[in-house]
Amino acid sequence: MTATATNKQVILKDYVSGFPKESDFDFTTTTVELKVPEGSNSVLVKNLYLSCDPYMRTRMGKPKPSTALAQAYALGQPIYGYGVSRVIESGHPDYKKGDLLWGIVGWEEYSVITPTPDVHFKIQHTHVPLSYYTGLLGMPGMTAYAGFYEICSPKEGETVYVSAASGAVGQLVGQFAKMMGCYVVGSAGSKEKVDLLKTKFGFDDAFNYKEEPDLSAALKRCFPKGVDIYFENVGGKMLDAVLLNMNVHGRIAVCGMISQYNLENQEGVHNLSNIIYKRIRIQGFAVFDFYDKYSKFLEFVLPQIKEGKIKYVEDVADGLEKGPEALVGLFHGKNVGKQVVVIARE
Amino acid sequence: MTATATNKQVILKDYVSGFPKESDFDFTTTTVELKVPEGSNSVLVKNLYLSCDPYMRTRMGKPKPSTALAQAYALGQPIYGYGVSRVIESGHPDYKKGDLLWGIVGWEEYSVITPTPDVHFKIQHTHVPLSYYTGLLGMPGMTAYAGFYEICSPKEGETVYVSAASGAVGQLVGQFAKMMGCYVVGSAGSKEKVDLLKTKFGFDDAFNYKEEPDLSAALKRCFPKGVDIYFENVGGKMLDAVLLNMNVHGRIAVCGMISQYNLENQEGVHNLSNIIYKRIRIQGFAVFDFYDKYSKFLEFVLPQIKEGKIKYVEDVADGLEKGPEALVGLFHGKNVGKQVVVIARE
Repeated sequence: MTATATNKQVILKDYVSGFPKESDFDFTTTTVELKVPEGSNSVLVKNLYLSCDPYMRTRMGKPKPSTALAQAYALGQPIYGYGVSRVIESGHPDYKKGDLLWGIVGWEEYSVITPTPDVHFKIQHTHVPLSYYTGLLGMPGMTAYAGFYEICSPKEGETVYVSAASGAVGQLVGQFAKMMGCYVVGSAGSKEKVDLLKTKFGFDDAFNYKEEPDLSAALKRCFPKGVDIYFENVGGKMLDAVLLNMNVHGRIAVCGMISQYNLENQEGVHNLSNIIYKRIRIQGFAVFDFYDKYSKFLEFVLPQIKEGKIKYVEDVADGLEKGPEALVGLFHGKNVGKQVVVIARE
Repeated sequence: MTATATNKQVILKDYVSGFPKESDFDFTTTTVELKVPEGSNSVLVKNLYLSCDPYMRTRMGKPKPSTALAQAYALGQPIYGYGVSRVIESGHPDYKKGDLLWGIVGWEEYSVITPTPDVHFKIQHTHVPLSYYTGLLGMPGMTAYAGFYEICSPKEGETVYVSAASGAVGQLVGQFAKMMGCYVVGSAGSKEKVDLLKTKFGFDDAFNYKEEPDLSAALKRCFPKGVDIYFENVGGKMLDAVLLNMNVHGRIAVCGMISQYNLENQEGVHNLSNIIYKRIRIQGFAVFDFYDKYSKFLEFVLPQIKEGKIKYVEDVADGLEKGPEALVGLFHGKNVGKQVVVIARE
């Protein structure tokens, strides 16, 4: 007889419109067999950490044909996202019992996955906290790395602006930019976060966008000579303000537009003529186009962590039952640093 | 005693808001000495052809600090733009009496210029109509060439959409794209222009945007598999519709946004999230960043003209006094093909 376990899951109750609410999610408990089907190449994993990421909002809405990147979550099914997991049993040649991996798993205690390159990554380095593979050493870290070095075309001495700068990606982009000798300013939505940017992450300057009646004026104050590089996490009014402050031949790496994800009708951006006037390059990107550089990224970033040169802040919610609250809070900026949900500490 | 001549000029009477009107311009007649000052390196030219270009609108408004590309015209002074001119007298070592050049001159019969690299170009090939140096062989031609080959990163078999496609730049982009083996669709604002696109310039398809109640639906009809490359001349609602129809890894070369130049408050563009979903690159560019490739461009395009492989349509207004009407007409789409003003035929 096969051993079984109960499997608590977070499911999507209803398609979300506007800001997601905790009541859009529900919990269910199923039973999972603690083995993989005979002859299958799938892997049974125990999920340890889950990652709360802004892009997940784009999967919560009613399916639309225009959103090529994001498939909608299925109603009544567990939502899914990046996580860190321990292999319980494996039919896959690359994974054996006890291995650790990070990648896409369900929001549940146990998942059965079919490991897929660029979707699942075996964890080889365990001298760092495992939760880091939901952030610094996982998708957000790789996003910051590819976005900054591959998309922004940065040069020493340039000015860099990062919005949502204390988040999982922003805090790293700012530090990468400082390493390169750029002048870096970040914005965030609370005094606590702004202080973090200036004191912990080494940003040259930072401001609380909620306390700025005129975002363009705030940018002009922080960048009297204009912005060479904008790392875009926000969209909408913020993008409009930045466009007015970009320098000639400026670059905007579009990583996310969290301000727009919860709007049924997206804000209009009015200052796009600056794209011509200032010959700006705006480049959207997705991390999964860059995962071939993941091992190069680890070689770069692991020594920096070891030497304490990279600072990293997590906001940890304890228990799967805290998952919906943590995820929903992301869209109100409640998290300070990378939002993680711990299902099980080992 | 120095010979003199009367010099009719087109001056800007008042800063333009909204669409330019003929009454925003005035004529004045001054006297010009038909020689260059002793010891100066300037050149006296007789202007033959003037070019009407959409970007000129961006110089007619009240000066604003945010428009880095375009300096405003001075009130009461002749406006200026690209033209083709004959050298009457020269203090410049590179130019002698009788030479032809194209580049920035005043809207007047005679101009005194200081030839400047990347602003003035000596005309070496005169077996083509000289007026072509206001278009096909001048700034718009170079714009189409650099914009398509350098900015769009085109590949054989890709789908290309060109707005304002019968204009000076658009008609060439479409033909360059066909040469590369792309599927090319253009839009324009009249049946006559649409016919021109399909019959003369060899576009695979074309539509009259004024007769399409739903631009996105029109694009979906013409591009059932989506748009890989958009050559942007229009902006506003057109850009919004295109964003909905772009393919993953699509590219948008932003050459101009003529629909926005006459608006005091620019239209909002709402579908920018597609930049992320589809990892789109939007790149503004200005021809003067590419003039180092001008001789390479001529080598490419002159044989094509000789062999009749490139079609080119001009709309010619006769006489400087027709200049304001021709220029103003551009913003109502009155021109069919490249709008030229002839001051003097030789």
